[in-house]
Formats: sequence, structure tokens, C-alpha cells
Amino acid sequence: MEFMAGTRRSETTIAERIGVGRNNQAVTLNGMVHSLRSMGALTFLTLRTRQGVVQCVCPREAGLDGVTDECAVRVSGTVREEPRAPGGFELSGAQVEVLSRPAAPLPVPISKRRLALNLDTELGLRPVVLRSLRARSVFRIQDAVGRAFREYMHREGFTEIHTPKIVHAGAEGGSNIFRLDYFGKKAFLAQSPQFYKQTMVGAFERVFEVAPVFRAEKHATPRHLNEYTSLDFEMGFIDGFTDVMEMETGFLQHMVRLLAAEYAEDLARLGAELPLVERIPAVRFDEAKRLAAEAYGYRIRDPYDLEPEEELHISQYAKEQWGSDFVFVTHYPSKKRPFYAMDDPADPRYTLSFDLLFRGMEVTTGGQRIHDYDQQVRKMLDRGMHPEEFASYLMIHRHGMPPHGGLGIGLERLTMKLCGLDNVRRACLFPRDLNRLEP
Amino acid sequence: MEFMAGTRRSETTIAERIGVGRNNQAVTLNGMVHSLRSMGALTFLTLRTRQGVVQCVCPREAGLDGVTDECAVRVSGTVREEPRAPGGFELSGAQVEVLSRPAAPLPVPISKRRLALNLDTELGLRPVVLRSLRARSVFRIQDAVGRAFREYMHREGFTEIHTPKIVHAGAEGGSNIFRLDYFGKKAFLAQSPQFYKQTMVGAFERVFEVAPVFRAEKHATPRHLNEYTSLDFEMGFIDGFTDVMEMETGFLQHMVRLLAAEYAEDLARLGAELPLVERIPAVRFDEAKRLAAEAYGYRIRDPYDLEPEEELHISQYAKEQWGSDFVFVTHYPSKKRPFYAMDDPADPRYTLSFDLLFRGMEVTTGGQRIHDYDQQVRKMLDRGMHPEEFASYLMIHRHGMPPHGGLGIGLERLTMKLCGLDNVRRACLFPRDLNRLEP
Repeated sequence: MEFMAGTRRSETTIAERIGVGRNNQAVTLNGMVHSLRSMGALTFLTLRTRQGVVQCVCPREAGLDGVTDECAVRVSGTVREEPRAPGGFELSGAQVEVLSRPAAPLPVPISKRRLALNLDTELGLRPVVLRSLRARSVFRIQDAVGRAFREYMHREGFTEIHTPKIVHAGAEGGSNIFRLDYFGKKAFLAQSPQFYKQTMVGAFERVFEVAPVFRAEKHATPRHLNEYTSLDFEMGFIDGFTDVMEMETGFLQHMVRLLAAEYAEDLARLGAELPLVERIPAVRFDEAKRLAAEAYGYRIRDPYDLEPEEELHISQYAKEQWGSDFVFVTHYPSKKRPFYAMDDPADPRYTLSFDLLFRGMEVTTGGQRIHDYDQQVRKMLDRGMHPEEFASYLMIHRHGMPPHGGLGIGLERLTMKLCGLDNVRRACLFPRDLNRLEP
Repeated sequence: MEFMAGTRRSETTIAERIGVGRNNQAVTLNGMVHSLRSMGALTFLTLRTRQGVVQCVCPREAGLDGVTDECAVRVSGTVREEPRAPGGFELSGAQVEVLSRPAAPLPVPISKRRLALNLDTELGLRPVVLRSLRARSVFRIQDAVGRAFREYMHREGFTEIHTPKIVHAGAEGGSNIFRLDYFGKKAFLAQSPQFYKQTMVGAFERVFEVAPVFRAEKHATPRHLNEYTSLDFEMGFIDGFTDVMEMETGFLQHMVRLLAAEYAEDLARLGAELPLVERIPAVRFDEAKRLAAEAYGYRIRDPYDLEPEEELHISQYAKEQWGSDFVFVTHYPSKKRPFYAMDDPADPRYTLSFDLLFRGMEVTTGGQRIHDYDQQVRKMLDRGMHPEEFASYLMIHRHGMPPHGGLGIGLERLTMKLCGLDNVRRACLFPRDLNRLEP
């Protein structure tokens, strides 16, 4: 019998371990051999650690026999200032101890600055491609987005919830839903946590969830995934749906501040520019369509829908006219929104709802929800739905709900646009699409 | 067109809004009517806000006509010190504005201190039962556990990942897996993020995930859920599997500190006592079995398995002998562990793995994983598995992995034992079990 006393050493940055103040000191580091370059009597070993890469200069007797890329190693050496090394410091006189070896060489040279693989090849080799520094930066930024979301939510008094993904009814309607057998019962994979997050507004008033959602859409586009991570929140006692948009704007401001403060190196590696989020324009659906059509000289084909090209045009307009990478489009037509969306009392053909466009793509859908029982049942009946199938959901309206609203943010789309990627699959570690179920 | 400038007001506590320093000031609060009690000319309205309950004293002309429990209201009044009120302050001369009304009275009196419903009834009425203060406290504590986990992980240099839940192969083996049709292909729901978190060790060295996992187990016990939230982490460059246990101990210490500092009221409401986590004993599987059998006078039936009653006995022994609510049981038999577990070189019948027991129940499984390609393939072949079916997983071993290990913590079980609940379903907002697919 022994006792565990807990890890008490906190993480240090690479600059704290190999930087100013450590010059000429002996240091030992663990990492993977990212690349090796022989220069006569010296070998330059680039060590990939979780905090960043370190240049190690190894003499002939460094223990490099049989060392290859992607060996796990422990390197000991002396910290030396070296302006040409990443971070301005290197490990000199480095001695290498091998902890493990690969069985085969890498299928692609991941230490190259850009891999330039076609998407299919890249996704097939994902387990090793993700070791490249560019891929790491994308998913470090994704980590930061999630971290910013939770920090901001907690600060604003939201409680995190975990709701079931195996459900008895879909929230978003339509046929885009995965079915499964649940011990002999028909079940589905959740398209969104909609019913459950509304339910939890009754308990906690403000709730959020970060979790996978599943859409059986047969789209093969650069913007669709069949499984993605949704950042959801729902809040009670709103005065109107602009409260929800203000809350999202506050989150985006917090996120940009965090990225600017702690992720500058990752952003620079990707050539990514942070968006301005001081203020985000909000424009009505019909007005947005009209403004963009007039500005770019085309005719509106369908007054009740927003096509991907129109999203591009409206984003372009917002950038040119209001200097914003983001634009809220409000008051979507009622027939395009789910049954729980609240219609605008001033014109029930439209809803008190919105999308947020970011650099040409929808990244958020949100709005005010119906809280009154009779109103909700009536809207369901108007749509030919059967309220009795939704009894456990309607329980919340039946027994009292405050005015409330919320939204869902697609984490991968937000990451994609922040990082300037051309396909949402590159912003998902292991994407699921029509043809891809592994890795 | 208008601009959103972001929510800038941060959350205030109830004590900041109605407490010392606010005495005699006018305050307006939103909330749900938790209970109403008429006392002659005055009505006592208990307002449920997201920060806590507030006693509001309403005169006859307060606007209470037709106000019932679970109305959403806005209450204005004057803060008055009142030792008998929750928090020591009340809102006097309260005026009530109704924002929404329920369509029907509550099926159960949720403002009672204890509901004492049988579990089936409670789960059926979950959408309203979760409004009770006791249920709120359970899930506030669950929120805190998740928050502590992420804070600790980030502080220790872990990166958060999101991995797919629709997968092409199960990680944990066996038949306890849900199947679904994925555009004509056979697919499964992930039993754990095992393959993916190991894969990401190759990229980030330290990763964590908080996400649902799915187990098609046909158990109907107080400790099993068919969908639960798993707190997973995986770390590279370990010197041995005790590094993983030390990391978990550090997390538990951080969690207990956070709960003690910010959740005292919720713990008190539940009568929950925080566990001691200064040091956690670790004892070998076979030794633990022997010690408990000797101490409590029973014969060991199966030397290679740990039955639920034995977990209870070992926990009891750890409490009595070492004063600990937690105990690590190490070196589980190889045949009881999955194919990726590393066998103990000193005795390959056992593995370098562990479970963590908390107050009589397993809440964590973890250990060191095989990182060598040949060793992993050999173990799969020994078990009659087909390595070619796991090609994308084995890619990581093939192309180099550091020594690594990790664990998965069942969030609901940890919450259950922290809160002193008798069934894991009470620690899950909307539990999924053999018979329950809604709400």
C-alpha cells in the first residue's frame, strides 16, 4: 500500500523552461522527434513538446544511433541564447535518450510547414497529420473557443448541463435524423439539446451545454458535418431576443480577447486575423436580402429563404458598409423555423429569431421561444403535429415558463472561419460525413 | 439596422443584490413564484431566482390577483434585514408584475423541502421536479465538478478535444454497444473516446474530453446508466501509471477546494460531506481482496474479479484503516481489461491499471496503455482479434507513440457519491436506462 498525494506542479510555458533567466542552465525535456537535420559533426533535432518546438543541437556522441522522426525521447542539454532558433533559445550539447520508437516511417512529412495534401488523403491520415504544427494550432484555437465560452457562461450565471443524446423524438423536425434500436424501442440521435435546455431554464434560468449533435443530412458540402459540437445556451427572463444576441456578442468579445492574449503564436502560424467584435450589426432578414441584392445587382429568387450565396453577399455588405466580419440577420420567416420559435406579434409571418453570419457563413441560429402553453399547442396543431407525442416537453409550458430564448453555435464552423480554413472538415478532428466513418 | 454591443454586466450574487449594504434600497428581481403563503393582510411570496430564493412580503395591493406557484414574475420592493428570511434579508412592500402564467397547477409540491417520491414517479415528472431546490443543488454540484475538471486540466497543460460518437468499431469490446445505420453502413455509438484520446496524445501529449458515452448494458441496477458523461484524460511521457493516479488525485483535491469555497449552501442542503483527499491509498487488486476478506471474515469466490460487494468491503476497509473515502485498486487481472491495457512486465497476468473506488463504488477506470506497435498487435492476435480492422487506430503505434496512460471518470457516479444519493439516476438530469427513453 502506498499513498497518492496529487500532482502539485503546475504547467510551465516553454519560455519559462527555456528562455530568458534559464540561459546556461541544464534542462531535461520530453518530446517527440519532429525533425532531424545533420550538419557535419552536429545534428539539429527539433523536439515537439506540448508547449512548442525546441531546437536541440546534438554532438556526435549524443545517443542518436537509430533515432528517427517520431521517436519519443528525453533530451538533456544546456539552454543557450540563439536568435535563429524558435523562441530565441536552443538546447546545446544535447544528449538523447530514446523512450520509444515507431515501427515504420511517417507516410507524409509532417514537419513541413505546409502539407498541401488533398482533403481525402489528409483525412485518411488524420492520426498522424494532426501532429503537424498547423493542425495543432487549429485545435488549440478550438480549445480556446470552448474555454472562452464556458468562462463567459459561468461568469454570467449560467449552469452547465448534460442532456441525453439518445432521444425519443427529434427537436428540429424533418427526416435528417439518425435512428437506432434502443432495447427494442425506436430511438433517435439528438439533433439539438433544444427541448432539454428549455426544460432546464425552468430550473436554473440560465443554462449552457457543450456537446455533440447529429444531423443525418445527405449534403456533401464544405460546410456540413453529420456530427458536430454545438455550443448551446438558453436564458430566461429576456425582454426580447436581442438579449440573446447581446449575450452572444459578449461571448465573442471575451473569446477574441482570450485569443489575442494567449494564442498569438497559433494565429500567426495560420495567418489568421481576429475579427472585430466591438459592435455587431443586426439587420432584418428581408432588409438584408434587399440591401445585398441592390448593392451587388442581382434579383431575389426566393423571398422566404436565404441561400448560401446570399449569406456571402450579406456578409460582404456588412464588411463593406459597417466594417464587421459578423452580422446578425433577424426575423426569419416563420415557415423556415421550428415549431418552438416565437412568431413576431407585429407580423406572424416572421419570427423573433436570428442567424449570425461570420465571414460569409451561418455559425449560429437562435431566437425567442414560445413560453405560453396554449400558444405552443396551437402552433403545433397548425403545423399538423401531435402535441400528445411531446407530452414530456410540453410539461414545462403547462407548469409555467418565463419568457426565454437561446441559441446554438457550431464550434467547427466558428473555428473554421476564425482560422481561415476552406472546409469545415479541417476544423473537426475526426469528421463524419456521407462517406467517412473512420478514423 | 442596429448594433449589438455585448452584455457587459457580470453576474452578481444574491447576497450582493439583497444583503448587507443594500438595506433599505429599492430592488427589482425576476424569478418564479416558488411558494405563496397568506398571513392576513400580508402574503409571503418565495421567489426562486437563479442565485437563490428570496422572501418577498407583499401587501394586499401588491398585484397578486391570480398569481400562483410557477408564475414568472418581476418583483419590486425594499431590502430589509430580517433574520428569519433565507440569507437574513427580505424584500418588503413588494409589488408583483406577472410575466407569464402556468396553464395547470404543479403535479407535485416542489417547494416542499423533501419530495419523497418514488424514483419512477420522480423521473417521469423530471421537468418540474428539477425545479426543486434539492435537485438544483445536485446539478449545481455536478456543474462544479465539470468546472473543476476543466480548470485543473487546462492548468496542467491539457488540451480539450471533441471526438466522434458515431464510430466504426467499439473500443471496449463485448456486445454492450448500440448499433445504428449510417447512410447504409454499419456503425456504433462510442463506448468511450479511448482510441481517439490516445491518438491525440501523439499530437498534444496531454488531452481531455467531457462527453457522453453509450453502453448497451442490460443491467437495471442503482449504479448503471446506458448513457453517461465521461470525464476523460490521457497523458504522454508518463514514468508509470501512478502518474495518472497522481493527476487524478490532484484533480480531486482541486474539486474539493472549489466545492468547499463556493458550494457550501448546496452541500448543506443535501447534507453532503466533502471527502478527505489529502492523500489517497493505493493497494494492489489481490492484496485489497485479501485484506477485505480477512477483515470482514468471508471467503474470496473469484480471485480474478471484483464484485460490487467486494468494492463495498474494500472501501469500508480503506475508510477504517486509512481514513479515506477513496481508494485506488491497482493491477487488475489482464483478462478483465481491454486489449490496449499494458500488462505488468513483472507478472503479465496482471495489468498496469487501476480503478478508483469512492464510498463503495467504482468511479474511475484507468491505466497505462501499450505504445509499442509489435506489442499491441501481438496482444490483439493473442485475443483472436483482427488487427486489420483497427488499421486507423494502429497507425498511431506504427508511427510512434510516447509511453502514455489515462482514465475515464463517470461524472454521474462521482456526483451521486458526493451528494450522498442512493441511485445514479438521481445524479443524471434525464437518465437513460433499460426502460426509460423519455423525458
